[in-house]
Amino acid sequence: MDPSQVKIPPMKDLTVDNITENAIRMNSLCEDERTRYVLERLVTHLHDFAKETRLSSNEWMTGLRFLTEVGKICSDVRQEFILLSDVLGLSILVDSIDHPKPSGSTEGTVLGPFHTHEAEEMGQGDLMSHDKNGEPLLVVCTLKDTNGNPIEGVKIDIWETDSSGHYDVQHPDRQGPDGRCIMRSDKDGIFWFNAITPVPYPIPHDGPVGKLLKMLHRHPYRPAHMHFMFEKPGFDHLITALYLRNDPYETSDAVFGVKDSLTVDIGKAGPEYAKKYNVSEDHALLTYDFVLVSDAETRALREKNSKIALDKLGRKVKMVNGLPVPDLD
Amino acid sequence: MDPSQVKIPPMKDLTVDNITENAIRMNSLCEDERTRYVLERLVTHLHDFAKETRLSSNEWMTGLRFLTEVGKICSDVRQEFILLSDVLGLSILVDSIDHPKPSGSTEGTVLGPFHTHEAEEMGQGDLMSHDKNGEPLLVVCTLKDTNGNPIEGVKIDIWETDSSGHYDVQHPDRQGPDGRCIMRSDKDGIFWFNAITPVPYPIPHDGPVGKLLKMLHRHPYRPAHMHFMFEKPGFDHLITALYLRNDPYETSDAVFGVKDSLTVDIGKAGPEYAKKYNVSEDHALLTYDFVLVSDAETRALREKNSKIALDKLGRKVKMVNGLPVPDLD
Repeated sequence: MDPSQVKIPPMKDLTVDNITENAIRMNSLCEDERTRYVLERLVTHLHDFAKETRLSSNEWMTGLRFLTEVGKICSDVRQEFILLSDVLGLSILVDSIDHPKPSGSTEGTVLGPFHTHEAEEMGQGDLMSHDKNGEPLLVVCTLKDTNGNPIEGVKIDIWETDSSGHYDVQHPDRQGPDGRCIMRSDKDGIFWFNAITPVPYPIPHDGPVGKLLKMLHRHPYRPAHMHFMFEKPGFDHLITALYLRNDPYETSDAVFGVKDSLTVDIGKAGPEYAKKYNVSEDHALLTYDFVLVSDAETRALREKNSKIALDKLGRKVKMVNGLPVPDLD
Repeated sequence: MDPSQVKIPPMKDLTVDNITENAIRMNSLCEDERTRYVLERLVTHLHDFAKETRLSSNEWMTGLRFLTEVGKICSDVRQEFILLSDVLGLSILVDSIDHPKPSGSTEGTVLGPFHTHEAEEMGQGDLMSHDKNGEPLLVVCTLKDTNGNPIEGVKIDIWETDSSGHYDVQHPDRQGPDGRCIMRSDKDGIFWFNAITPVPYPIPHDGPVGKLLKMLHRHPYRPAHMHFMFEKPGFDHLITALYLRNDPYETSDAVFGVKDSLTVDIGKAGPEYAKKYNVSEDHALLTYDFVLVSDAETRALREKNSKIALDKLGRKVKMVNGLPVPDLD
């Protein structure tokens, strides 16, 4: 490039005391104000982290090597950076910020690294897990908006492990998708299907994130749960899961996903459900009433929460495309 | 693992307001107090970054994909995470914290990703670059301690690009190391060698870090420089470089490395040097007097700086192995 075109404000002689402001200035030529703000905060926190820990060159190199290993182990069926974000509590934090829920609606939780795009569409009552060692489970759910009206035609992604605690993609010899499906809610907002009772399982812990957990004396287990994802234009994309109450890992989930409102008891079908859904009366039963929030309501709540949080921090911001940037006017 | 062995304090229902303290508590079982402190600061800053930017799920995923790409492109001869740390100003910051310099000693600067361990040992006056297109340069240096006494037998790593701005390892068809060598200072603390005049060059910018720079409208250039690394037991490991004054990128170095005290003029040998070093009088000449700091002096200064910086932040710390940890007594 032609050096005469360099527009970066002159700098040199960078010290502990002036490197941060200079790095921020260096990034200030970007025309997108959201990118500038995100980079400004990123550089500030990265530098403050090093300053407050007095990070040594050895520790810095250990960190860079760790991140390199995390990148190297990523593949089409393994996303170790999501896993790292999960175990550091960042994933659940970002979900809570971006998908705030008004009271009475269904809370979200971590996506995890095992959602795929190859699940097959299923009809009401179909069987989504073919694991013969699992305990058969009837799942009957309703889907409503915050006014209590049923929502028809929502695309619902559902996925769970087999009875050994592994998702289909974790079996190298798998024949195709299993333990996952896509359904649509009917005109009464109902969807129901046959699955197996979820079991607790460890997140993949044979890689760098597993080594980190081991060093920190943390276990890699997640309590038993079933994942759900809901999509319909006009409604906020909901990524959530239902957790089994009294699971041994209920209060120490490796990825911080458990919420009281998402914790359920597995019951028995009993005479009414047995008759209606053609199962025995002691068949395991899971029921849940999901409540989706509209896009407009979510956006308003997100912006309101942002304003409150940033006001508390003394940051004057304005919203651009629903996200805060410094208000310099 | 046996769930009855879980020692993690119970938690669930994690929200924007309580996830950080819970994540820190989850990491608190580690017995090493330095690791606990580094993790505590890391989680705090990572979460504060997300809270202050109100990071969206899309931005989070963009960030994770970027880090994955950075990891994927790393190889034996390319360390893209070092490059990322360099362009964010973190590398120069960590060097400044870990290798503080008393006044009168030679300042350090970024290592960069091109140091290797295959350079050959050379004698005084030998030729370290065989690039016939480069401008021949005589380099004559002295090496002293902070009391002005010459230091003998220091291991000195020296490396520079060829005249096209590429290090040897960047040429896929290279025959062996070139433009790099290891020397030893003599009993008068002198080392001298023949090289070529350094040229400005871009850092590797065909990968994710290059894309980041482009998005930020930053150029990838470094001003012309020659790298030096000094090692001798009892002295603080010095990683530094000499920069050419009036280089077009002197005040906009992509990796923030330039310091006034490391900026030099290339002169002419003149009659005295011409005779002594057997070159013509108008042969290009670079001279520099390096000053190394003892381990003990560096450690004392590092601990003093840590105390001052952390006092300013209101953090009560004690030093363990030269690094701060919270002082809980």
